[in-house]
Amino acid sequence: MNSIDELKIAMRSFAEARDWDQFHSPKNLSMALAGEAGELLECFQWLTEEQSSKLSEKQLLAVADEIADIQLYLIRLADKLELDIFAECNRKIAVNAEKYPIDKSKGKSDKYTDI
Amino acid sequence: MNSIDELKIAMRSFAEARDWDQFHSPKNLSMALAGEAGELLECFQWLTEEQSSKLSEKQLLAVADEIADIQLYLIRLADKLELDIFAECNRKIAVNAEKYPIDKSKGKSDKYTDI
Amino acid sequence: MNSIDELKIAMRSFAEARDWDQFHSPKNLSMALAGEAGELLECFQWLTEEQSSKLSEKQLLAVADEIADIQLYLIRLADKLELDIFAECNRKIAVNAEKYPIDKSKGKSDKYTDI
Amino acid sequence: MNSIDELKIAMRSFAEARDWDQFHSPKNLSMALAGEAGELLECFQWLTEEQSSKLSEKQLLAVADEIADIQLYLIRLADKLELDIFAECNRKIAVNAEKYPIDKSKGKSDKYTDI
Repeated sequence: MNSIDELKIAMRSFAEARDWDQFHSPKNLSMALAGEAGELLECFQWLTEEQSSKLSEKQLLAVADEIADIQLYLIRLADKLELDIFAECNRKIAVNAEKYPIDKSKGKSDKYTDI
Repeated sequence: MNSIDELKIAMRSFAEARDWDQFHSPKNLSMALAGEAGELLECFQWLTEEQSSKLSEKQLLAVADEIADIQLYLIRLADKLELDIFAECNRKIAVNAEKYPIDKSKGKSDKYTDI
Repeated sequence: MNSIDELKIAMRSFAEARDWDQFHSPKNLSMALAGEAGELLECFQWLTEEQSSKLSEKQLLAVADEIADIQLYLIRLADKLELDIFAECNRKIAVNAEKYPIDKSKGKSDKYTDI
Repeated sequence: MNSIDELKIAMRSFAEARDWDQFHSPKNLSMALAGEAGELLECFQWLTEEQSSKLSEKQLLAVADEIADIQLYLIRLADKLELDIFAECNRKIAVNAEKYPIDKSKGKSDKYTDI
């Protein structure tokens, strides 16, 4: 599978086969996603920024696991809410471009909390 | 843009134009992503599970914003670590299928913490 | 130990004995704390609200572990920043009392995101 | 108020006066706490570790707010589950002391994910 749509269908089948739809309310999925984001933090918490760019194979695999978990829960959550992830990303990029004009944001991190 | 790859390129340009690459270490990006996951939680924290499935237009827009933020940071993080999100998702789905066999997992949430 | 101050001193000794002070920047401690908050979420993510009030002994122990971890990191973080947790809590309660006047907040969750 | 017990009583009154007990299931409180932990991350996400130790007055106040929010939700959650925060902290410190013996843990962050 190499598209969000294909993964969405696969996740639906996975949940249905296990009768897990009952657990997948948007509220619960937001918790599961944030739990995985917490595990992602744990991969990096004691590393310096520099070390975080030069992960060992084992460290990289652990991070890759969390990235996949987050992506899969995100797809599942968007599916449950009938949101199109790409449409929302495009909308958000346009918002961010206006919010952080190049000339005023250049090299400054204190101007933004979002991307 | 309607692919992860196109969004990846757009995010790169966005960061480069603002000289923000210096802030985008994997460590920092994991924090930013988890911060957005926290904002996602805030959308749902006082709602019942049922209410979380029937969001108002305003609530849905707030959730859509967070989903987009998480997706964009996830793409940025994977890009920095040279990870292919789809490859990792496919790998993880195979792992999960083995970890949660249908006959043993059916209708049981206590058997799993991942999807 | 039954005070924040005693725990603060114990945490200092614990870190010093292991030469862990070098890892305990406020940034890193915020990540560790949020990681534990993610583990706390995982205890509750597939439970209904009602079930979350009636935990089994095993479930309660898991939650108690996370509560302790969060408390200990919080004490450590406040210590590093020379903040007095009680002073800040008192200040915040006063702010919240003003922000959420009883007559306007009664029974409404949509008026607040903080306590 | 300068004890966990006094804050616990204050939080009870605060919630009762606003009829907010109905929202304060352990599940919901875990989400609110993790949401505040996400806001804490946002205070530090673009700072270097060194900068995170030398906060401006404004930055420090923002962090202090989040620390108070986390502490207050933690007290509320422990109260709802009838857990004694100090008892759990003492138990956890003993567990950690055994898990991370000084001679084997000295100066090594890769041996631990907890404190």
